Amino acid sequence: MSTALLTDHYELTMLQAALRSGAAHRRAVFEVFARHLPGGRRYGVVAGTGRVLDELEHFRFGEEQLTFLRDNRVVDASTLEFLAEYRFSGDICGYAEGELYFPASPIMVVEGTFAEAVLLETMILSILNHDSAIASAASRMHNAAGGRPLIEMGSRRTHERAAVASARAAYVAGFASTSNLMAGHLYGVPTAGTAAHAFTLLHDSEREAFEAQIASLGPDTTLLVDTYDVAEAVRTAVELAGNKLGAVRIDSGDLAAAAQEVREQLDALGAFDTRILVTSDLDEYAIAALAAAPVDGYGVGTSLVTGSGVPTAAMVYKLVARETAAGELEPVAKRSVGKPSRGGRKHAYRLFDDQGRADTELITTSAEAPEGGVPLLRQLVRGGEPVGREPLADARARHAERIATLPQEALHLGRGYAAIPTEFA
Amino acid sequence: MSTALLTDHYELTMLQAALRSGAAHRRAVFEVFARHLPGGRRYGVVAGTGRVLDELEHFRFGEEQLTFLRDNRVVDASTLEFLAEYRFSGDICGYAEGELYFPASPIMVVEGTFAEAVLLETMILSILNHDSAIASAASRMHNAAGGRPLIEMGSRRTHERAAVASARAAYVAGFASTSNLMAGHLYGVPTAGTAAHAFTLLHDSEREAFEAQIASLGPDTTLLVDTYDVAEAVRTAVELAGNKLGAVRIDSGDLAAAAQEVREQLDALGAFDTRILVTSDLDEYAIAALAAAPVDGYGVGTSLVTGSGVPTAAMVYKLVARETAAGELEPVAKRSVGKPSRGGRKHAYRLFDDQGRADTELITTSAEAPEGGVPLLRQLVRGGEPVGREPLADARARHAERIATLPQEALHLGRGYAAIPTEFA
Repeated sequence: MSTALLTDHYELTMLQAALRSGAAHRRAVFEVFARHLPGGRRYGVVAGTGRVLDELEHFRFGEEQLTFLRDNRVVDASTLEFLAEYRFSGDICGYAEGELYFPASPIMVVEGTFAEAVLLETMILSILNHDSAIASAASRMHNAAGGRPLIEMGSRRTHERAAVASARAAYVAGFASTSNLMAGHLYGVPTAGTAAHAFTLLHDSEREAFEAQIASLGPDTTLLVDTYDVAEAVRTAVELAGNKLGAVRIDSGDLAAAAQEVREQLDALGAFDTRILVTSDLDEYAIAALAAAPVDGYGVGTSLVTGSGVPTAAMVYKLVARETAAGELEPVAKRSVGKPSRGGRKHAYRLFDDQGRADTELITTSAEAPEGGVPLLRQLVRGGEPVGREPLADARARHAERIATLPQEALHLGRGYAAIPTEFA
Repeated sequence: MSTALLTDHYELTMLQAALRSGAAHRRAVFEVFARHLPGGRRYGVVAGTGRVLDELEHFRFGEEQLTFLRDNRVVDASTLEFLAEYRFSGDICGYAEGELYFPASPIMVVEGTFAEAVLLETMILSILNHDSAIASAASRMHNAAGGRPLIEMGSRRTHERAAVASARAAYVAGFASTSNLMAGHLYGVPTAGTAAHAFTLLHDSEREAFEAQIASLGPDTTLLVDTYDVAEAVRTAVELAGNKLGAVRIDSGDLAAAAQEVREQLDALGAFDTRILVTSDLDEYAIAALAAAPVDGYGVGTSLVTGSGVPTAAMVYKLVARETAAGELEPVAKRSVGKPSRGGRKHAYRLFDDQGRADTELITTSAEAPEGGVPLLRQLVRGGEPVGREPLADARARHAERIATLPQEALHLGRGYAAIPTEFA
């Protein structure tokens, strides 16, 4: 299915005007970056890179798309001809998926003619802004959970397709699984689930509901225990499943106190191995506040899929260099009030101190690598061909590894500044 | 393309357990409602209803979906057999698209067997929670704009498919147009666009860029005037396009002051009909603050697609009635702490005072209509067949009409309580 119309109207009218002026064929470099980390975050997590490569392959103007553009007079006939033949033939490099980023990090660099590169703005930004916002929130939750598994279960609180991308981004940033089946199907994210209150209410008693669930799914299932009275439900659950009961889920009330009571009750009933899963509007702060409670796993919904207060990553796609009439590539930057931009094709390196802790994000327009700097840009597309595909597990492993290199204060949940400074050379 | 896997894992495992217990075939009534209006909003706007009908038609488990479920052992063989034959054959009624809603309004009511109705939970909630959140924010912006046109241009700040739904929802709630071409293609929302800074930077001078744009798009185009110096850009723009220049766009700085200066300059140059369009992180508050400025239109991005602080509508999908073992339909409700639910199949009416102002949202489990009450539930699906389709323009007209019936204080932008009380009879 073509992704070409996931594009702003003005990309096409700019293309039309630039085709007419001839400037459309000038070589251009666009850069994706965030001027700041919204919400006082200490770091951002790049996610969506793999999806950009997927959607780029389907970025084609077929007869259906061209007919729409023609019928609605979006662009003129010669622009339609150009679009009919459109294939991105340039180069894209960028931060790898799961990599961390900071203010001004050149997260993606798109090089080609103006015509071919300008058309990708909306699609690239949509994916990176959404997926990185979700991954950045997920990463904080993962840190707060301190090794306890997190299940992503926010599909119902966001657009049905954003839900799939959210599950994928959360997995990159350390979540163990998702409730979203499409994310399992498309991306291989492990899926998981418990049961809803409706299942208990459907049956004539909670006991009958638990019996039905255990009979079908085995004693290792997770029973939801707060439909009526928690203590009574736990008693019934262990009576029916024995000490092989997999887990109970608590979805309301003071979760720390409830988990403590349920743990004591489970232990008293001999169900020492039965885990306690908590859900109910959890975010990274609520998760952190449960660190001392006997909780074995967290289900996170709304706050994950809405980026926990930061639903979009504030990334922009800016022209940083273009070919002049004389044929030379020249840095450019707008001078709009309060929206700083730096011209020039960038390189980016991360520098580390002698303990191996990240200490600087170095952005340079020089091709020369700084001593000890780890290059952050990798080739993703070369001559229009994707070369940067990788298994999602690699992005997930990269995130875990990079988080371990951050200075300790980067994991502080409160608002603040970027964990490491961005320097320009 | 099948939408069946846009579903939480647990819907399918509950189905499996209920098929085994036999309860799956009990008649069930699920209700979509919001316990409160998040963000201190005075009213909500229903959006997404038409999209629910579209996705319901594609909610089929084909070979691809069944293979995924089988290979990943999500459910057992007899459940897969059920899913292979699955077609929703029940009834759905709900608030019409563009209608207003309040806490506890039964926005959608799904009736069928438990098996067929439980499977739709995630898909229905995803659509209604997302689209209604966007429409509710858009409605406030539309009120704040006081008749000046609003262009939706937030696609790059949200998931690429959520962007399309956002443009659609914003149109329902009064926006004039969108930058999103796919929303034009799929839903007929008018599309519009201006030009980006990149277009100016691409050319060797601002003058050359403006010349190129005017040559291709005509003097009625909208020129972006803040890439370098606004006053100089306006002078160049009018010099090149004459007093037929369509509009200028200002995207930075103090928009009220800048608009005032640009208006004076345009008038002094004789360009009395040239409009001023402003953009740059506008939300309903910023729009309201520009009421006295000489602004002719607003472009709204980030705040629209993120619901202006309320990215999801907090709607839930709850079992409110089910058939007992004795074959009778019985109201049910969970008793979880702090999450009030009311059992029973509901009807909803809006009551008006003698000036025709809405004054009560009446929810009743009785089939008897209250005097003067306007019924809010309409049939959307009957026996599995969609019967509630309507042109998007009808939803848009409904929204405008309903807003006009609200008490004045409903349009106050500050946080508060619902504009009219919800009463239960």
